[in-house]
Amino acid sequence: MVRILSVEDIKRIVAKEGLQSILQQLLDQQLADFKRWNDFSKSSRHATHGHNGVIELMPIHDRKYYALKYASDHQDNPSKNQFTVIAQGILSDIETGAPLLISEMSLLTALRTGALSALASQLLANPNPTIMALIGTGAQAEFQILAHHLLLGINRFQCFDTDPEAVQKCCNNLQNYEIDIIPCKSITQALDQANIITTMTSTNQKHILFDVEQVPSGVHINALGADTIGKTELDPHLLTLSKIIVEYLPQTSIEGEVQNVPLHHVDAEMWEVASNIVKGREHHEEITIFDGVGFAIEDYSTLCCFYALSQKHQIGTLLPMTPKAQNPKDLFGILID
Amino acid sequence: MVRILSVEDIKRIVAKEGLQSILQQLLDQQLADFKRWNDFSKSSRHATHGHNGVIELMPIHDRKYYALKYASDHQDNPSKNQFTVIAQGILSDIETGAPLLISEMSLLTALRTGALSALASQLLANPNPTIMALIGTGAQAEFQILAHHLLLGINRFQCFDTDPEAVQKCCNNLQNYEIDIIPCKSITQALDQANIITTMTSTNQKHILFDVEQVPSGVHINALGADTIGKTELDPHLLTLSKIIVEYLPQTSIEGEVQNVPLHHVDAEMWEVASNIVKGREHHEEITIFDGVGFAIEDYSTLCCFYALSQKHQIGTLLPMTPKAQNPKDLFGILID
Repeated sequence: MVRILSVEDIKRIVAKEGLQSILQQLLDQQLADFKRWNDFSKSSRHATHGHNGVIELMPIHDRKYYALKYASDHQDNPSKNQFTVIAQGILSDIETGAPLLISEMSLLTALRTGALSALASQLLANPNPTIMALIGTGAQAEFQILAHHLLLGINRFQCFDTDPEAVQKCCNNLQNYEIDIIPCKSITQALDQANIITTMTSTNQKHILFDVEQVPSGVHINALGADTIGKTELDPHLLTLSKIIVEYLPQTSIEGEVQNVPLHHVDAEMWEVASNIVKGREHHEEITIFDGVGFAIEDYSTLCCFYALSQKHQIGTLLPMTPKAQNPKDLFGILID
Repeated sequence: MVRILSVEDIKRIVAKEGLQSILQQLLDQQLADFKRWNDFSKSSRHATHGHNGVIELMPIHDRKYYALKYASDHQDNPSKNQFTVIAQGILSDIETGAPLLISEMSLLTALRTGALSALASQLLANPNPTIMALIGTGAQAEFQILAHHLLLGINRFQCFDTDPEAVQKCCNNLQNYEIDIIPCKSITQALDQANIITTMTSTNQKHILFDVEQVPSGVHINALGADTIGKTELDPHLLTLSKIIVEYLPQTSIEGEVQNVPLHHVDAEMWEVASNIVKGREHHEEITIFDGVGFAIEDYSTLCCFYALSQKHQIGTLLPMTPKAQNPKDLFGILID
């Protein structure tokens, strides 16, 4: 039997565990998996470009599991009352190829991306950050805010979005948390004294959100908006002045902020910092950038985490998605049984 | 809501429609889709090689649907009481990326491969075939036999397998059909006077099942066993003497029988024959070979077919696998709702 996790099942699991615990588990699992990077067989994602969007396949495996995320990104979905990003995941037994779990991954991707950014901030930001700036407060914003609040103790979030209603949405959704969400009229205002900046606008071009001079000394930037060719948010000059950490260079070199600079400006892959092979931040004034495009290992971690949680709480629908072999040469017997 | 089709659901749909009707619908749908080949955006499959098997991703889309098959092939699965091939499929709306159907595809792959071979035989064999030889009678055998019996009227099937029990399994499973299944002691005996030959052994090497001299004049061969690098069943000399039809040359040139010969020996892709752009058989004595490795368009056809049938019969489990957007920027609102 294969366990199927719907949107409602994910909500139930998160409610049972609590959001702080879920985010902490996702951070811990991703850190643990980055630390054993060489156990994984990796490849860049397979992208299919339709006329109005892209569908990506992100497979990865180690000697235990094969994980696959199907993720679509259609910027005109909001006009059809759909989320921009829609994702599904499969976790399989690598020994037999048999699927164990099929899950919705729209919510899971948002949760793991929040936890991933908190992990990057933990590894790269100056100690005891107090102020975070968010440029772009779309579907991912609350997950970024809560991961940094619940896991790193940040209480002040300076938010800018070209759509003021998007900022108001954050304020409404997070009103029960003891945090200050400051709607800002400009990016300059949002960046003021920030220790951490998260960029995640939905631009579909090479955009420069702010100049080098606007960037506070010693800031850490989680650059999440760049995730495909021709879509970036940072000034290439800022990149050349900063320490840049990527997930998986063969993929990020094409999709990330670093598509705009020579690759010698990339300082390390995340697993090297997680494993203490490469130092993260080396001094207080340094600017660090996590150029996060989203890599399959993070979805592997997330699917493993929720597979275990769904078993713990007995949540999900069990369906016979693979034929059970009495005689492994007799598939027809299954059909007429 | 996404419709999920389990093994039991597929069995129910096949029972309601009848096997002959299902096979005919799959043949018709595949033929129709091959005829509009240029509507599809195609790529070779993405293969992940684990230490004891392979997991392949087969995506394809047109302007309406995106289809993905996840297919694993683990030759040691029978020792673990699992089928060698395990597959799942997703059919999505290409306009939004939203999945419409998630289905088991182990049975579906077997059904579509049976119908596909019957289509190839219909396009390439001499008229009114009466005898078919099967070399290798594993999990796919009954599907080949019934597709050729029910759709092309063949009543005599000469079967050889190194495992006599595999042939006996076919006889047992098909005892209610008015056909003659002849267990053969040798490949030579199986080939005797055959109009169509299907090769589908489970060898994992470059094997030669029979010599050129053993091949009856004017025979059509469905060569299904070759589907990956280093795994072939036919004599390369036979290939050079025959008319060879493939599905999608960039994939077949690596995975098919034609990996063993210069590619100028390939005469056409299937869609060209289906569309009458290239003639299939040109004379009675000619030997024709369909070098079938399995291509994504066939799974697209199959998922579309069963999506429609599952709606017609209201079969399947409907689950909320994607978040429903009230406000497409408010994903967090879904989580805490």
